[in-house]
Amino acid sequence: MCELEGLGYRGKALELLRGADCSVGDILEISSRGRVYEGILMPRFGAGAAIIVKLKSGYNIGIEVTDMVEIKRLGRGAKPAFVAPLLPKQNPALPHVVIMSTGGTIASRVDYRTGAVRSAMSANDLLGVVPELADIARVETEFVFSIYSEDFCQRDWSELALRVAKRVEEGVDGVVIAHGTDTMAYTSAALSFALQGLPVPVILVGAQRSSDRPSSDAATNLIGAVRAAGEAPFAGVGLAMHESISDAAIVVHRGTKVRKCHTSRRDTFQSVNGLPFAVVEDRVVMLSEHYQRRDPSRRLVLRQKFSDAVVLVKFYPGFDPSVIDFYVAQGMRGIVLEGSGLGHVSRVCFESIGRAIDRGVVVGLASQCVGGRVNMNVYDTGRDLLGLGVVAFEDMLAETGLVKLMWALGQTDDTRQVVELLRADVAGEYSCCTLLREGSLHYRGGL
Amino acid sequence: MCELEGLGYRGKALELLRGADCSVGDILEISSRGRVYEGILMPRFGAGAAIIVKLKSGYNIGIEVTDMVEIKRLGRGAKPAFVAPLLPKQNPALPHVVIMSTGGTIASRVDYRTGAVRSAMSANDLLGVVPELADIARVETEFVFSIYSEDFCQRDWSELALRVAKRVEEGVDGVVIAHGTDTMAYTSAALSFALQGLPVPVILVGAQRSSDRPSSDAATNLIGAVRAAGEAPFAGVGLAMHESISDAAIVVHRGTKVRKCHTSRRDTFQSVNGLPFAVVEDRVVMLSEHYQRRDPSRRLVLRQKFSDAVVLVKFYPGFDPSVIDFYVAQGMRGIVLEGSGLGHVSRVCFESIGRAIDRGVVVGLASQCVGGRVNMNVYDTGRDLLGLGVVAFEDMLAETGLVKLMWALGQTDDTRQVVELLRADVAGEYSCCTLLREGSLHYRGGL
Repeated sequence: MCELEGLGYRGKALELLRGADCSVGDILEISSRGRVYEGILMPRFGAGAAIIVKLKSGYNIGIEVTDMVEIKRLGRGAKPAFVAPLLPKQNPALPHVVIMSTGGTIASRVDYRTGAVRSAMSANDLLGVVPELADIARVETEFVFSIYSEDFCQRDWSELALRVAKRVEEGVDGVVIAHGTDTMAYTSAALSFALQGLPVPVILVGAQRSSDRPSSDAATNLIGAVRAAGEAPFAGVGLAMHESISDAAIVVHRGTKVRKCHTSRRDTFQSVNGLPFAVVEDRVVMLSEHYQRRDPSRRLVLRQKFSDAVVLVKFYPGFDPSVIDFYVAQGMRGIVLEGSGLGHVSRVCFESIGRAIDRGVVVGLASQCVGGRVNMNVYDTGRDLLGLGVVAFEDMLAETGLVKLMWALGQTDDTRQVVELLRADVAGEYSCCTLLREGSLHYRGGL
Repeated sequence: MCELEGLGYRGKALELLRGADCSVGDILEISSRGRVYEGILMPRFGAGAAIIVKLKSGYNIGIEVTDMVEIKRLGRGAKPAFVAPLLPKQNPALPHVVIMSTGGTIASRVDYRTGAVRSAMSANDLLGVVPELADIARVETEFVFSIYSEDFCQRDWSELALRVAKRVEEGVDGVVIAHGTDTMAYTSAALSFALQGLPVPVILVGAQRSSDRPSSDAATNLIGAVRAAGEAPFAGVGLAMHESISDAAIVVHRGTKVRKCHTSRRDTFQSVNGLPFAVVEDRVVMLSEHYQRRDPSRRLVLRQKFSDAVVLVKFYPGFDPSVIDFYVAQGMRGIVLEGSGLGHVSRVCFESIGRAIDRGVVVGLASQCVGGRVNMNVYDTGRDLLGLGVVAFEDMLAETGLVKLMWALGQTDDTRQVVELLRADVAGEYSCCTLLREGSLHYRGGL
């Protein structure tokens, strides 16, 4: 298999690229349908037959292969420097951190800055690109998979949890997972539930801008994540990204309380209804008082099974509840409703919800507001939903609630046990804040 | 029909309340299942047989009627002061503002502060409760309906638009609509599309805390809304609520760019991807430069039809696309996908989406990030979705996009015209910001 094939090119695209003697990393001029594109040839991940080129703007485009496409090589890409002359040496006294790659913009930085496409994820190549890492940790890299984060599903979470568990059991001081940002918060929730009793930090990290753009956040995020994995006093699953739109600090969010809140900003990830674990500048400063301490003697318990039979349904005005009946007929075992306000859906849904619960489906309710806490005791609608057997998700994010229900139904078939798991705080997904305590007084203690 | 019946009590509950000689507004002690509740008797709206009592905490609870329930009247409620001795006089020189009530916490303030349950929405009673209004506008009240906002649907939007149009055509200077907060942003988007070319402001207003709680925001929100309706230099649909958690200012958001972002905070409504219209302190200060000016000579065009055949589907890891096929089989004509990041769904969905579009279903894509702009030209996934015929919702909120698609399919059966309407900026739902212009350069002009 030639390099171009190994990097995903097939058929007509492969033929054209070979004809012009192109390698990945080369600068090409491609004419198609009257337009001329100039950019760097990129690998072709995923399906499709297009040729992928990174434009000067930093964006990748896919150019469809037709008989009209012409390719001219303008220049050779910089060849990977497998051993850079001044490559920093790994310091055996520093913490041992494994960086796993799963795909996404952050991996593409490391891949394409120097044109060192396949090798960049070796520890040496990574250090060649981000030499600062050598002062922070003894890094090792591990390729897990390379998929767009929107294509992640339950089996990928399970596989990833297994790979992390293996390294943690070997005694590493921390794990960093490079991940596409789109569904990174779902994965961080999944790992939070799957990896119980973690002795060390496991930090997901992504990037909003790829490295050839001047505003790239890839290197700073990675440095912050590696520092947190190697040095932070907490154990558990975190997610490290920019704290603000400046480069001043990287913040580590709790894996179950974080949400992607903006399509493009570098501080897109926000902790919702709770403080982040920590902020990373030249050292790790804890922000939260509620965390498990790092403890290499703690024994990891792996619970990596997730059910495929769980769905999320967002409520809105005019919502037709027949979709709930459809999901029940399809054999779904869990439904998360994203209700309005304090946790409401229209009364027209009550019959379908009641029927689902009668058939053993577990129904949870979160709020589409995102911020705040579901409180179903304030209005009739909420109380009636509780009466039907709906589980209030309190201040847990809808997305975390979905992942938790997939996980709970992966642990047991017993509906009662699933509901018990949902109500327990398994991985910091519920905040035990003043509001909750006040709420407890109001609603559990009568007047 | 006695007062208790008129206020929703039936059967056993009615019997018990009559037996204890209770009226709505009275202070009761109710014993049930070993617990004793003290509170004010409230009307019973909606289904169910419980007795509704407002506790000292400010929350309403429903006490189920069983043979074990005992009721004791502790005191009479304050009787409504139909003509308060010092009731401020309406000043005919002030702007004429109609306050319409549709339900929600804000209406309950006016209802229950003095115990004046049914009459409080007359102009005099309203002035008795919020006398400040008399210095701002010549207020008139109009009862439209009293429903929980989670029960609102398309026909309610149409009815409300008709009622507003009637008053606007009569020449009022502004309209205020008291509304439950849960789905208020959906209604503000619906009215924005239905009431085209408005000559005056139409301001939705709600409250997060009812008036008998010390932290109530009902009066301040109402005062701000009436001032904006009567005095503001803009025309169009706005939504007035607290700007922050302090009482300093009321902010008026654009009807199509606003979202409920917290379950309980008073500043729960936030303008997303755009500035609010205005801030209201002792006068109205415009914050946005992009608005239609108030112009009583402009002719309102009423477009109040909304389709029932539109659904919203939120994407997540493990999402099974068969629900898209289900909706197509059900005869849905529009689907809004809430994708991840810049506008992505997993490749496993492509076949179902393509099939839907082939059958004439209009499919729009918004981002579940909430903030930012869908940009489907950056990654393959987005480009492939555009290739299938998906309409990118740019920086329009998913909720606004849903309402807009319901509205567009209410205007025409022609799929092409619907797509044209979706792409046009009809009511400020798209921001024409720098990012969009830069984006146009990148993606429409080639390199």
